[in-house]
Amino acid sequence: MDLLIKNGTVVTESESFIADIAVKDGKIALIGKNLPLEAKKIVNAAGKYVLPGAIDVHTHLAMPFGGTVSADGYLSGTRAAACGGVTTVFDYPMQRKGKGILETVEERLKMCAPQACVDYAFHCIITDLNEGSLLDEFQAAVDYGITSFKCFFVYKKEGMMVDDGTFVKVLLKAKEVGAITNLHAENPDIIDMNIERFLKEGKTSAWYHYLSRPEFVEAEADKRAIHWAKTFDAPLYIVHLANKEGVEAAAAAKLEGYNIFVETCPQYLEFTCEVYKREDGRNFVCSPPIKGQESQDALWAAIKNGTVDVVATDHCPFQSYEKDWGKDDFTKIPNGCAGIENLYPYMLSKANEGKITFNTAVKLCATNPARIFGCTDKGSITVGKDADIVIYDPDQEFTISVDNMHSDYDHTIWEGVKLHGYPVQTYVRGELVYDHGNFVGKPGFGKFIKREPRIRKG
Amino acid sequence: MDLLIKNGTVVTESESFIADIAVKDGKIALIGKNLPLEAKKIVNAAGKYVLPGAIDVHTHLAMPFGGTVSADGYLSGTRAAACGGVTTVFDYPMQRKGKGILETVEERLKMCAPQACVDYAFHCIITDLNEGSLLDEFQAAVDYGITSFKCFFVYKKEGMMVDDGTFVKVLLKAKEVGAITNLHAENPDIIDMNIERFLKEGKTSAWYHYLSRPEFVEAEADKRAIHWAKTFDAPLYIVHLANKEGVEAAAAAKLEGYNIFVETCPQYLEFTCEVYKREDGRNFVCSPPIKGQESQDALWAAIKNGTVDVVATDHCPFQSYEKDWGKDDFTKIPNGCAGIENLYPYMLSKANEGKITFNTAVKLCATNPARIFGCTDKGSITVGKDADIVIYDPDQEFTISVDNMHSDYDHTIWEGVKLHGYPVQTYVRGELVYDHGNFVGKPGFGKFIKREPRIRKG
Amino acid sequence: MDLLIKNGTVVTESESFIADIAVKDGKIALIGKNLPLEAKKIVNAAGKYVLPGAIDVHTHLAMPFGGTVSADGYLSGTRAAACGGVTTVFDYPMQRKGKGILETVEERLKMCAPQACVDYAFHCIITDLNEGSLLDEFQAAVDYGITSFKCFFVYKKEGMMVDDGTFVKVLLKAKEVGAITNLHAENPDIIDMNIERFLKEGKTSAWYHYLSRPEFVEAEADKRAIHWAKTFDAPLYIVHLANKEGVEAAAAAKLEGYNIFVETCPQYLEFTCEVYKREDGRNFVCSPPIKGQESQDALWAAIKNGTVDVVATDHCPFQSYEKDWGKDDFTKIPNGCAGIENLYPYMLSKANEGKITFNTAVKLCATNPARIFGCTDKGSITVGKDADIVIYDPDQEFTISVDNMHSDYDHTIWEGVKLHGYPVQTYVRGELVYDHGNFVGKPGFGKFIKREPRIRKG
Amino acid sequence: MDLLIKNGTVVTESESFIADIAVKDGKIALIGKNLPLEAKKIVNAAGKYVLPGAIDVHTHLAMPFGGTVSADGYLSGTRAAACGGVTTVFDYPMQRKGKGILETVEERLKMCAPQACVDYAFHCIITDLNEGSLLDEFQAAVDYGITSFKCFFVYKKEGMMVDDGTFVKVLLKAKEVGAITNLHAENPDIIDMNIERFLKEGKTSAWYHYLSRPEFVEAEADKRAIHWAKTFDAPLYIVHLANKEGVEAAAAAKLEGYNIFVETCPQYLEFTCEVYKREDGRNFVCSPPIKGQESQDALWAAIKNGTVDVVATDHCPFQSYEKDWGKDDFTKIPNGCAGIENLYPYMLSKANEGKITFNTAVKLCATNPARIFGCTDKGSITVGKDADIVIYDPDQEFTISVDNMHSDYDHTIWEGVKLHGYPVQTYVRGELVYDHGNFVGKPGFGKFIKREPRIRKG
Repeated sequence: MDLLIKNGTVVTESESFIADIAVKDGKIALIGKNLPLEAKKIVNAAGKYVLPGAIDVHTHLAMPFGGTVSADGYLSGTRAAACGGVTTVFDYPMQRKGKGILETVEERLKMCAPQACVDYAFHCIITDLNEGSLLDEFQAAVDYGITSFKCFFVYKKEGMMVDDGTFVKVLLKAKEVGAITNLHAENPDIIDMNIERFLKEGKTSAWYHYLSRPEFVEAEADKRAIHWAKTFDAPLYIVHLANKEGVEAAAAAKLEGYNIFVETCPQYLEFTCEVYKREDGRNFVCSPPIKGQESQDALWAAIKNGTVDVVATDHCPFQSYEKDWGKDDFTKIPNGCAGIENLYPYMLSKANEGKITFNTAVKLCATNPARIFGCTDKGSITVGKDADIVIYDPDQEFTISVDNMHSDYDHTIWEGVKLHGYPVQTYVRGELVYDHGNFVGKPGFGKFIKREPRIRKG
Repeated sequence: MDLLIKNGTVVTESESFIADIAVKDGKIALIGKNLPLEAKKIVNAAGKYVLPGAIDVHTHLAMPFGGTVSADGYLSGTRAAACGGVTTVFDYPMQRKGKGILETVEERLKMCAPQACVDYAFHCIITDLNEGSLLDEFQAAVDYGITSFKCFFVYKKEGMMVDDGTFVKVLLKAKEVGAITNLHAENPDIIDMNIERFLKEGKTSAWYHYLSRPEFVEAEADKRAIHWAKTFDAPLYIVHLANKEGVEAAAAAKLEGYNIFVETCPQYLEFTCEVYKREDGRNFVCSPPIKGQESQDALWAAIKNGTVDVVATDHCPFQSYEKDWGKDDFTKIPNGCAGIENLYPYMLSKANEGKITFNTAVKLCATNPARIFGCTDKGSITVGKDADIVIYDPDQEFTISVDNMHSDYDHTIWEGVKLHGYPVQTYVRGELVYDHGNFVGKPGFGKFIKREPRIRKG
Repeated sequence: MDLLIKNGTVVTESESFIADIAVKDGKIALIGKNLPLEAKKIVNAAGKYVLPGAIDVHTHLAMPFGGTVSADGYLSGTRAAACGGVTTVFDYPMQRKGKGILETVEERLKMCAPQACVDYAFHCIITDLNEGSLLDEFQAAVDYGITSFKCFFVYKKEGMMVDDGTFVKVLLKAKEVGAITNLHAENPDIIDMNIERFLKEGKTSAWYHYLSRPEFVEAEADKRAIHWAKTFDAPLYIVHLANKEGVEAAAAAKLEGYNIFVETCPQYLEFTCEVYKREDGRNFVCSPPIKGQESQDALWAAIKNGTVDVVATDHCPFQSYEKDWGKDDFTKIPNGCAGIENLYPYMLSKANEGKITFNTAVKLCATNPARIFGCTDKGSITVGKDADIVIYDPDQEFTISVDNMHSDYDHTIWEGVKLHGYPVQTYVRGELVYDHGNFVGKPGFGKFIKREPRIRKG
Repeated sequence: MDLLIKNGTVVTESESFIADIAVKDGKIALIGKNLPLEAKKIVNAAGKYVLPGAIDVHTHLAMPFGGTVSADGYLSGTRAAACGGVTTVFDYPMQRKGKGILETVEERLKMCAPQACVDYAFHCIITDLNEGSLLDEFQAAVDYGITSFKCFFVYKKEGMMVDDGTFVKVLLKAKEVGAITNLHAENPDIIDMNIERFLKEGKTSAWYHYLSRPEFVEAEADKRAIHWAKTFDAPLYIVHLANKEGVEAAAAAKLEGYNIFVETCPQYLEFTCEVYKREDGRNFVCSPPIKGQESQDALWAAIKNGTVDVVATDHCPFQSYEKDWGKDDFTKIPNGCAGIENLYPYMLSKANEGKITFNTAVKLCATNPARIFGCTDKGSITVGKDADIVIYDPDQEFTISVDNMHSDYDHTIWEGVKLHGYPVQTYVRGELVYDHGNFVGKPGFGKFIKREPRIRKG
């Protein structure tokens, strides 16, 4: 054997048990009690948890936005991922008018391949159907391993928004080829109406970022998207859902048997809109904005009752000086925050505190993402799967700081947040990439994940 | 007294009782048993019902649409109204880019005044806010007696659609000045998507008019509009609602206490989408199209449980040769059907058959329209109100035909429909305008109704 | 004419207008503007409201309960009614094992007839089917004018409770003969469980009366009763409903078209369960007990959206010394409070304050009770109906005190409550029975109201 | 190693993968790819599924009912279990007035121990609280390993019914000691009312068994039980739920976060009430009866959306001559049917047909039962758990017949039902008890399972 992890508490989405894990050729070869095996490397995990690596299905690395580019490129972003127990990262290349899907993806693939420290996959954002011809490329994209597409209901002026007709065409074609449609759901017209009014009234602080797109702005778009998904019985994955009414609409549709999936992010679970009143409120600016306490409570309840399927980050950090562009005008603040290195430690800390089970944390951050997005070799400590493994010490206390993070950004909204328990090692396909606080991986080691098309759940 | 109607069964929205009605100076002066009064004219209504005149709050007279003009102008339209027991007609002038509200209304007022055979009022359709300046005119419009505005969620290419931001601005300003916002709710993008597909596939019959805007197209827009009305707690009146899911959304919002009002039309109550498969299906083309049996059933149930507030006609007839333009392309069929003369006889016939009560028919066609739209002197047989009275013979059988109608159109979707009971006389402000099958009124007799702003219901 | 009430603002459930009312032979003969009539008596009601007399459909006069008899007999109870603008009183005779319905009613009729100061009717409480034979008497009861029956889900030990099977038999037979079933809905087993525990724990104050039957005790029984009414599509009238969850269940069933009717009482609208913590908390003890603020809010909302059909009193006062029996044991407090004289003034005061409209107050206290329970000559200011009329001065301030009430009880829970506006005169069938603070009627003047069986609403 | 099962497709509730399973000392010791191990016994499972043994949590063995005793005792019942892939059986001892819980259980334990061919556990039915003293025994029962109790809302005359107060006392005490309350939910009064009427009308066939307790009889009791479980936030497990409205009520409560669990049975999934019209309809008589198609559809949907947690059998067969007692009077038919040997093959066949996934079948029949009822060593193919294993051949066709079953009954409602795929071997703690159609186990081998108290799910 190449690697033997002994006596840890193995956690799957449904069970926890003490066992040894043996790895060979990057795969999980054996799970058993007191394995009498030899191995090149033996790790004693007694008293530790042995978890599947997290899959962060929502990141924007080297992402052009608001006149700049997000602060983490593929190298620093995936390095930070490794150090936070994330073994697979999904990035969001954006198709632009006239461009094709594979063309868009391959351009990013070229950038990413030499830099990636962990495995990676791509969703593709669709902004224009090129008079319909783009739809003809969906099958090829799926064959290529791109089995999910994303639409925006917002960013109208930025040329990223699709109208309902375009969205439904994407829904239908994606369904036909076995792919799934992701959606950023907010209502652009109401946002623009609010912004116009606030700027006219001289209301320019970060608090008005929230007030220009509060709960009801997101809720409307959630409900509209779910209406179309139900109408055409097509799978829909709502990214970064952050409001109570949207949760309720999704829960109702799921109960009726529709393939509606819900993602939320740690920032919506930890903070409330009150942060936008802080002096450094602009640092928390992301879209959709963080909502009120009632929505936060609804999200945690939805995690417990199964309405939330995935927690991912929407990682898209900007530097302080860039955030400062919007000091006197919230519309000039680049949208996005850091999170890739905090996702798994945060959710596991919540498990450790008893708010959720470790099984639920694993399901939300690893197993469900793999299942929904067709990563058949990922997401679970199961014989035959990739040995993407995190060893987690439930007794290690950790306080997040920009200083102990491994990204390229210069500040973090998570500064000072205390966690109970922390990852001590991360393995990608059996290779150690993170070890007790230090990145020990190699850029270019990460591999592109060709994903399977989805089949209907039972 | 000027007029004494004796021994009829007076019907209000809540009661039915035998009494005499005395009219003086165009007003209802007395209601009583065996009034020992003298009068210039005495009508024996024994065995008949004495009802308030209907108020058709949804008509399009002399309306430019699809390269032509609707077949009924103000004279023929209001003549037909009188002969169908409608004593007040609401027409829909349309504001166009750069034009003001009063300018728009006054232009129509000038056309209408010399021709009107019954009283009339105007809603005003808003298509453009003229960069916001139009909103400044809302108060003046209300002072003028225009206390309702209308928006379209459809007719994008025709330049009539408003986006959600504009709609919300109208909702908010209307609320502020005590007016109410009417809405044509369908989703334009999905309609366009469907039309594009059907035409490409050579599916051009009237049946594809229905399939391009089936239940879910209307339902989405209903739900979105209700979402905004709830969010901003502003009154909303959905015109010609015709689908089950919209009914359910409106019912839920009403139960929560919101000022949501629902109008439907006789064509949605009598026919189903099956008519579009008929040889003459194009004659039934209106928007929204007539829906399936389940929606029709839901509408009748909603009439019984109070979710539907108003039945009006959306009267907008076109001549056969105009309808024929769309023989080979449903998108070329002018949208609209006749109905103004059939509204009250149809609903009263349903009462006579026992499907609803006469009180409910009166509430839907007269009392609620007056109350919702601020016609304080109209809508009920009550002392002090205008003597707008219909005498109805429950024993007269009537078969609708274009030959016994009083409009200018050359065919009707109601051809051959049998009614049980029919109006025998219509009085507007005490003047006889219709008598046993004949129009006996005078063009120009109708008066403009200056309406009151609305106050919240209790 | 016998009586002419001039220039008052006449209020019906749907309209308010200034008119004169002329009365002849106890009936409303004329309604009109400036009636040029002579009359034996002319009342100037300018500046006043002219309202239909209230119908209190829930009273327990001379009611044996808890080892005593309620403090108001038929004389004092109906005298107080007259002074509170109530012109018809419904009392609740209770059938006992082996007794028949008419036997039960006639016994009470004999007691009531010589004492009644206003008109009266009887529901009949069913406690035992006498092995089924009682059901055979339902048709005779309806022919006699008793068109409503009542069951208790509580008072198991007292022998008044019926099980679900008996209840459904009553529902079905009542439906068959055109009657309606009233229900006191609480769950007896949970109450007994709670009482047993509280007494064991020495928790004996009035607060434990509330805690032994809080919201969920009533809600369960409401939902169960509605389940059966829906299952068998039989009309159901829930008396004194006082909790939010019950309101919601009733609203949902009504929306589905079922004949579910809801009554609540002023005590549930004015007070909350906090009163049971007061020194004199035992005086407020009634069943079901007054609930929390959330339920009170739900009841007012339900009044506005039409879910509550009727407000009545459950008038059943006891003297202070009787209430004191339970000073050290809440189970010994006779259940019931005074209210008959406060019902209409209270609801009208709420209208005067703008919380509801006067039309709604009239609908809840007069028109709906008449309609639901088949009093075809009552409940509205309409030509041909009984001249049961209240003249109401909206400017008269009034503070309720046992001293200015006209019952025989020695205290009232309404002590000190301030009302804005008060009745100044009450007429029953055209006869003055109450005049500016004084009872001026005659015992024995009141007549038994033979009621019509119900027909389905439209 | 004691046993090595090679190359089978291992199925857990969340995953399927090809692996070898090694068993030592009755436990699963290893799971891995191509294990290079020696073992006393090696089984080639290539092309087969390797599943956890099913846990049938609802059986009535040697159960006295209706003047007889169910046809399967502990020996034949557990023998049949083994042959159907059931490795743990839960039986239902019934506490009777004056008896204690452990007394009741131990009496059964004595009967069962020498006969049991597979492992077993006991729920305890509570029929009387012995004036409260029984509640004091709950903690001892839990310590003994009895962590679930059951109440009946029916069987009033038989002395098994508990009223709502008793039920709530059980709910509360069970919650306090970490146990869960099971409930048979039907309404006894309505059943009795129906039976009385049918017998009087001479309606005596098995069809009237259904009509005396149709959907609404069960639905009321489900809703009532859920109301109490929600009120007191206590865990509730509804046994053999078989109607749509009950499913909906449970789904809503689960979504709100309550610990409501739902069990249904194969007979409700395969048949509809139409079977009661058959000549042999009496053989299908069980309570609750099998319902209509709409309920069956709702149950399957509830299996897919997670509302149904468990499928178990309610195994309680009677001989033909006993069923015949009710040939002319449905009330004389002993209630119950065979099923223990059909449970797993039926659900797995449905998986094989694609109606559900194999993971779902495993979750419903093994993993969830173990989790809900505290069998910590059972229910999953996981390292360290008991080696309760079924090897399943997806290609073996099987037609159920009383001739190929291993019970003592003389007929089965499943006669002639064709299954696709069938178990070929069953292991209990590593010991082969069933092999290709033959029982090869030993009476007395089965062990009593001491269960853990429950903790709240996350």
